[in-house]
Amino acid sequence: MISEKLSQATRNMQSSMIRELVSSTRDIPGLISFAGGFPSPKTFPRETLGRLYANVIENEGECVLQYGASEGDNMLKEELLKWEGYSLPHEQILITAGATNAIFYMTLALVEKGDVIICEAPSFLGSLVAFDAVGAELIPVDLDREGIDLAGLQSAVQKVTAEGKKIKFIYTIPDFHNPSGITMSYQRRRDLVKYALSMQIPILEDNPYSRLRFSGTALPTLFRIAHDEFQNTEIVTEIVSFSKILGPGMRLAFAKGSPILIERMCSWQQKINIAPDNISQRVAARFLAEGHMGPHLEKICSFYAPYLEAMLTAMSRYLPPYVQYTKPEGGIFTWVWLPEDMSADELFERAKAEKISFIPGSKFYPVGKEKFNCLRLNFTFSTPEQIEQGIKSLGKLISDFYA
Amino acid sequence: MISEKLSQATRNMQSSMIRELVSSTRDIPGLISFAGGFPSPKTFPRETLGRLYANVIENEGECVLQYGASEGDNMLKEELLKWEGYSLPHEQILITAGATNAIFYMTLALVEKGDVIICEAPSFLGSLVAFDAVGAELIPVDLDREGIDLAGLQSAVQKVTAEGKKIKFIYTIPDFHNPSGITMSYQRRRDLVKYALSMQIPILEDNPYSRLRFSGTALPTLFRIAHDEFQNTEIVTEIVSFSKILGPGMRLAFAKGSPILIERMCSWQQKINIAPDNISQRVAARFLAEGHMGPHLEKICSFYAPYLEAMLTAMSRYLPPYVQYTKPEGGIFTWVWLPEDMSADELFERAKAEKISFIPGSKFYPVGKEKFNCLRLNFTFSTPEQIEQGIKSLGKLISDFYA
Repeated sequence: MISEKLSQATRNMQSSMIRELVSSTRDIPGLISFAGGFPSPKTFPRETLGRLYANVIENEGECVLQYGASEGDNMLKEELLKWEGYSLPHEQILITAGATNAIFYMTLALVEKGDVIICEAPSFLGSLVAFDAVGAELIPVDLDREGIDLAGLQSAVQKVTAEGKKIKFIYTIPDFHNPSGITMSYQRRRDLVKYALSMQIPILEDNPYSRLRFSGTALPTLFRIAHDEFQNTEIVTEIVSFSKILGPGMRLAFAKGSPILIERMCSWQQKINIAPDNISQRVAARFLAEGHMGPHLEKICSFYAPYLEAMLTAMSRYLPPYVQYTKPEGGIFTWVWLPEDMSADELFERAKAEKISFIPGSKFYPVGKEKFNCLRLNFTFSTPEQIEQGIKSLGKLISDFYA
Repeated sequence: MISEKLSQATRNMQSSMIRELVSSTRDIPGLISFAGGFPSPKTFPRETLGRLYANVIENEGECVLQYGASEGDNMLKEELLKWEGYSLPHEQILITAGATNAIFYMTLALVEKGDVIICEAPSFLGSLVAFDAVGAELIPVDLDREGIDLAGLQSAVQKVTAEGKKIKFIYTIPDFHNPSGITMSYQRRRDLVKYALSMQIPILEDNPYSRLRFSGTALPTLFRIAHDEFQNTEIVTEIVSFSKILGPGMRLAFAKGSPILIERMCSWQQKINIAPDNISQRVAARFLAEGHMGPHLEKICSFYAPYLEAMLTAMSRYLPPYVQYTKPEGGIFTWVWLPEDMSADELFERAKAEKISFIPGSKFYPVGKEKFNCLRLNFTFSTPEQIEQGIKSLGKLISDFYA
């Protein structure tokens, strides 16, 4: 009975294929997984968090166990502003139950069925299926080694505009991009912000990974460039997640952007979640206030650096020379380009038989616009030893592909 | 710039007027408030929760700080089934970030712009604005002393169906109804479930208050009646909130219902929140597993009982005889009917001048279908002494209304 009553959007809704792929390999004993996007549980600051949760409930329980403001905890906002070094009004910040949550609110606030969101190709599947569920048409623009291809972006904008469609925003992950591992160059960032300003197209900057930099020099976020160099705090909405730096179980992220947009996103939050978890918010505020974030981030980065090194060393040693891949300085993913006629979806099945898993690249493109000769490798879940062994086997599978 | 890009639903979105009313009186010193719907912070089991949060992070941190399942924590589901005494498959339960969250997912799963939701009049404003934001047309059906008026319901269903509109569900709060304080009679419950089954119209049973019964005999929920008497677990989706029995800051609720609907609600949860807060979920599971819930509920009920008594005593003593009101045996609200030509919106302004606040009843009706001679009184926020004093003043204001 209920099946006949489902809304159109619900009937057509795509599921996250990644989830199904991951669960199709979950029960393989001895599996070496490069598939997930989970942080290592060893990086969770359990001792500090355990103490903070207990303290916050003991000392501030009457407040944090009560309903909180839909806008988020003001104490956390203060600490976030100090941490990031901005002096913005609280009206330009919204705390949400994770980054996906903030992305969904922004999409609901702006997108009408048939409106266009320009995304990078490849891009984060979780966002693509959410955009799709709200009714957006996704227009992918290729990435090059410096990030989103600006000429491609401009011609996409022209084409879509000529068709009379409305572009609601550009969705980008400039730092340690998921899934490609690419970090947008400074020049590309500046040019992108300048172009967006000239065309008045909002940017959604998804930033889950920028603090996970193990080497090299950090680049300013798009929000920072708009703020510092163009005195604009409205064209870019930056969404920063705590999932990779504290723990995804806490469901915490924050968005900074135009006060009008933030207010409307907050209105959706009021209807959908009422408010984010008050306890986690206050714990994160105390974590920042007590000065744990800096040392903790250094610790996580030192922890992950050998994982990345193991991955890059194994890739250079074991992957055939005709295979290309990105060499990130942080984050949690690398990306592999196979020869054009080689399908990573097919490779996935062969790898599964060898107890190795990854995500075929095709899953990171809008439906109907897939590329098949690519794959994503996560390097923060398996141990460095497993990484070496897994990439060795994967190299052999690729070499044997045509056999 | 961003204003022009907002989606239609976002432009038209109603805000919760209650929030604005509450904030219009927030800074009045010495205010006696009957306005909010907050539980008393004195009922939060802080000591137990503080210990459980610390333990859960210490002993299960690697698990609870990680991403959780979109369906919710299986351990919590087990405990919920034991607590409520059901043997349902986990596929019929979804854990969410509060009841509003579950209500929103169910609405997204079923409602298309123009579809009808039948609601009680008056009803919980938070749900009405969420239904409206998804594009539902709200058809209100009056309440009598036994709950939703079945003849009214039947004629509403006939009328709407004749107009060719689709009814997606009936929204009801059978226990200690918000805002009216009415508890649906057993006979009415049974008749409602039977009618819904005969017409195949789903019911959304919103249950935040049924465990807050201070006297009298508990009645089976609609879900229970459908389950026990009609062997049906699909027609009713029951949503139980932890906000009034543990603490709203934790953002926890759960829905039970049709596996198809629960699966689709879970798909929306995956796109909107990924998963509920893992830590709060496990803490709630341990709270139940360690047997705290029973004694805790007894404690809350004994705590609130004198508040309700103070309210009913003051109402019988100080309100003019031509004023009618409900006499609930639990929950957190009572409801007052003024003479037909007396506006509670006007009374609100006069009461504010006397440092008393409540919510005018008109705020609990769909836009354009308001009744103005009614008001909601919360009795769990102000002390029994304040309740006596506040109702005395309110009685005088009502008596003086025509002066």
